[in-house]
Amino acid sequence: MPRTVTAFSNTTVKRLRSLRDKKYRRSEGMFLAEGLRIIAEARDSGVLPEIIAFSADGAKHPLAAEIIAATEAAGGEAIETSADILSKMSGKDNPQMLLGAYRQPDTALNRIDRSTAPLWIVAQALRDPGNIGTTLRTADAVGAGGLILIDECADPFSVEAVRASMGAIFTKQVATADWLDFLTWLHFEQSQLVGTSLKATHGYLDAGYYPPCFLLIGNEQQGLPAEYEAQCDLLVKIPMAGRADSLNAAVAAAVMSYAITASWGRARG
Amino acid sequence: MPRTVTAFSNTTVKRLRSLRDKKYRRSEGMFLAEGLRIIAEARDSGVLPEIIAFSADGAKHPLAAEIIAATEAAGGEAIETSADILSKMSGKDNPQMLLGAYRQPDTALNRIDRSTAPLWIVAQALRDPGNIGTTLRTADAVGAGGLILIDECADPFSVEAVRASMGAIFTKQVATADWLDFLTWLHFEQSQLVGTSLKATHGYLDAGYYPPCFLLIGNEQQGLPAEYEAQCDLLVKIPMAGRADSLNAAVAAAVMSYAITASWGRARG
Repeated sequence: MPRTVTAFSNTTVKRLRSLRDKKYRRSEGMFLAEGLRIIAEARDSGVLPEIIAFSADGAKHPLAAEIIAATEAAGGEAIETSADILSKMSGKDNPQMLLGAYRQPDTALNRIDRSTAPLWIVAQALRDPGNIGTTLRTADAVGAGGLILIDECADPFSVEAVRASMGAIFTKQVATADWLDFLTWLHFEQSQLVGTSLKATHGYLDAGYYPPCFLLIGNEQQGLPAEYEAQCDLLVKIPMAGRADSLNAAVAAAVMSYAITASWGRARG
Repeated sequence: MPRTVTAFSNTTVKRLRSLRDKKYRRSEGMFLAEGLRIIAEARDSGVLPEIIAFSADGAKHPLAAEIIAATEAAGGEAIETSADILSKMSGKDNPQMLLGAYRQPDTALNRIDRSTAPLWIVAQALRDPGNIGTTLRTADAVGAGGLILIDECADPFSVEAVRASMGAIFTKQVATADWLDFLTWLHFEQSQLVGTSLKATHGYLDAGYYPPCFLLIGNEQQGLPAEYEAQCDLLVKIPMAGRADSLNAAVAAAVMSYAITASWGRARG
C-alpha cells in the first residue's frame, strides 16, 4: 500500500527533491521523470521507477494506478502526496501529478553494440539539456541507436533533458566518453564518422552515407573544433541561405539524421 | 555621451527590466536583445536599439563602441552600468555585457508580401519561446520569408525567443493572426498550404511543393487540430521509425523546410 506523505521534511520527499541537482543524481545514480506519458513509455519499455510519487488525483487514472501497483509489486516505494510537495520536487508551478525516480543506466561506451542500428548520433560538448533531450527524441524517430555524449555535455538525466526526450531516455542508449576514448572505440570496428562543416565541399544531400554511421554534432556556441573535423571520414555542408552561419544543434542533428536515413531509403527503393 | 547609472531605482534601468514581462513589452511596444552577436546582427540589418546598456568591459569591444556611438547619433539613449544591474535586467546570472531595447516591428499579416520568398513557416499555438526563436533561425537558414504565428503562441519578442533566434528576429518577418483571418488572407492569392500528419498518405520526400508554400506546424502537445489539417492543400508524413509519434515542433519545422527547399533544388538541378 502506498504511504501518504504530507511533510516537506519527509526523507523520501527530500531525496526525490535532491535529484533535481546533478550532484545528487550522480551520487545516488538516480534521475527523475515526470508525467504519465513518459512514465508509461518507460513501463512499456520494461522500466519501472524505484520510487513513485503521486497526488490523489494522479492515482485516479487507470494507467497510473496500474504503474503504481506494478512499482510496489516490484519492490519499489510508492508515496501519495500533495500537489504542493510534487511542485517542490519537480521545480514546476504546475507539476505533473505523477513523478518517478529511476536508476540511471550504465553509460559506458563499451555497452554499445554498433551493429544494432545503422545510425548513431554523437554530440560534442552540448550544453543545453533541451538539445540533448530533443536529440534523443529525434534518435528514436529516425531509428538511430542512441546518443553518445563527448566531452563535457549537459546531464542527459536532468529533468529538462528527460522532459525534452519525451521518453526516449528510456528507449535509446546513452553513452558518455571523452574524445580520445571515443575515437579508439570507434576505430576498433568499421564505421563512418560524419561531421557538418561550412568548409565542406560535399552537400549533405549528395554525399554517400554508410552504416554504422556516426553523426557528429558540435557545441552550440563553437561548433566542432577543427581537430575533431579532421578526424571525420566525411564532412558535409548544410546549405545556409540567410545571414546566419549555423543552425540550432538539435535542428542540425535532425536535418542530418533525416537526410542520412532518407538516402538509405532511396538506395533501397 | 553615455550616462553612467549605478542605481537599481534608475528609471531607465527599471524600464529595461520591465521588458522581461510580456505585459510591459506589449504596452511599451519594445523588446530586449542581449549580447554583441545579436545586436551587431541587428545593426547590420539596419536596426539600432532605442536604448543600449552596457558594462565598462562591454564597451571596450570596438564593434560595441561603434554601435553605442551609432545609437546615440540616431537619438537613442546609452547607459553604462554595472554587471550586477545588467544581470538584473536580463534575468541571467552571467549577463551579456551589452543589452539593447528595440521597437517591436508591426506584426500585421497584411505587411507580408508572399511573393518575396518561396517558403513561409506558419506555427499554430506554439507555446515554447525557444521553439519560436529556433524556427526563426531555421527560416533564415532556408531562405524562408518569415514566421506567421497563428492563435495563442508564445511571445516572439520574449528574451528567450530573441536569444534562440540568434538575430533572425531582426532579419525575418514575423506576423500574428488568428486562424480565420489567416485563411482569408491566404486564399486571397495563390498559395500552397502544407501540413504534416500521421494520417497523410504522401511521404514528405515524395510530395510536390509549390511556392509560395506555407508550411503549417502544430502545437507542441496536440499537433494540428483536425479542422486545420482539413484546410491544407497537401498533408505529408514524416516517417517515425521508433516508439514516439511526433518530433519536437522546431525540429519538425526544420526537417520539412529543408525537404521542401531541397525538392526545389533538385527540380532546378
